[in-house]
Amino acid sequence: MSSQMTPSRIDHVAIIVRDIEQALLFYRDTLGLVPREIKDVPTEQVRIAFLPAGGPGGSELELIEPTVANTSLLKFLERRGEGLHHICMEVENIDAALHEMHEHETPVLDQQPRIAAEGRAIFVHPKGTNGVLLELLEKSK
Amino acid sequence: MSSQMTPSRIDHVAIIVRDIEQALLFYRDTLGLVPREIKDVPTEQVRIAFLPAGGPGGSELELIEPTVANTSLLKFLERRGEGLHHICMEVENIDAALHEMHEHETPVLDQQPRIAAEGRAIFVHPKGTNGVLLELLEKSK
Repeated sequence: MSSQMTPSRIDHVAIIVRDIEQALLFYRDTLGLVPREIKDVPTEQVRIAFLPAGGPGGSELELIEPTVANTSLLKFLERRGEGLHHICMEVENIDAALHEMHEHETPVLDQQPRIAAEGRAIFVHPKGTNGVLLELLEKSK
Repeated sequence: MSSQMTPSRIDHVAIIVRDIEQALLFYRDTLGLVPREIKDVPTEQVRIAFLPAGGPGGSELELIEPTVANTSLLKFLERRGEGLHHICMEVENIDAALHEMHEHETPVLDQQPRIAAEGRAIFVHPKGTNGVLLELLEKSK
């Protein structure tokens, strides 16, 4: 096993919601977390809010609101309701991580690392992770 | 809002599984996370593994295996399957957090903070958190 692919930290925990503004009534106004960014990501058909939970380098909560009908995220929302959607963990080397998943025959959703907002990432299929949609992310230097 | 009750970090993300040993085939043997402790907690009718993800003070993954029939955790497992179960965030003052939840009429599962392994905690009901079972924890000093 390559230590380059063992996660070094939880980058974020993603929560799928119907309406970010409504969700902020709890996460911001009751809990007191301060969003560092709220933005539309048209390429992924979502609107996202990042809520740092902890100091620099700490993990974040990510609120995800699907903005387009008939997407897989919206279907997830209709099937399971609002709630925890995925965990993202940071790795040093995403190519090593993908290789390791193949070696262990762990199913992944990406043939090649996808370009994410903060680097390159793969999603590991819940079938291989006891039901958890797991994003592994190599952050851009 | 009291800053004493705003979460300072994600303490752990809990994953409910049918069999911890089987789950470790992925989380330990493929992903490379090293359990710091695996133990039975008879009072809560579960077996738990803690997997640090990051250095000292980092967040952890917690694998939870229900060990007794007819518990609410086992019913959750039967209804939703394996996967993400709750997030635990650390707060400085759990009494202030509970007070704040009452002020905002956010539903909580605990009338008083419960005694958890590492301190005192309350669980916020998913109805108040957009579907997330959220544990708030004041760690013992």
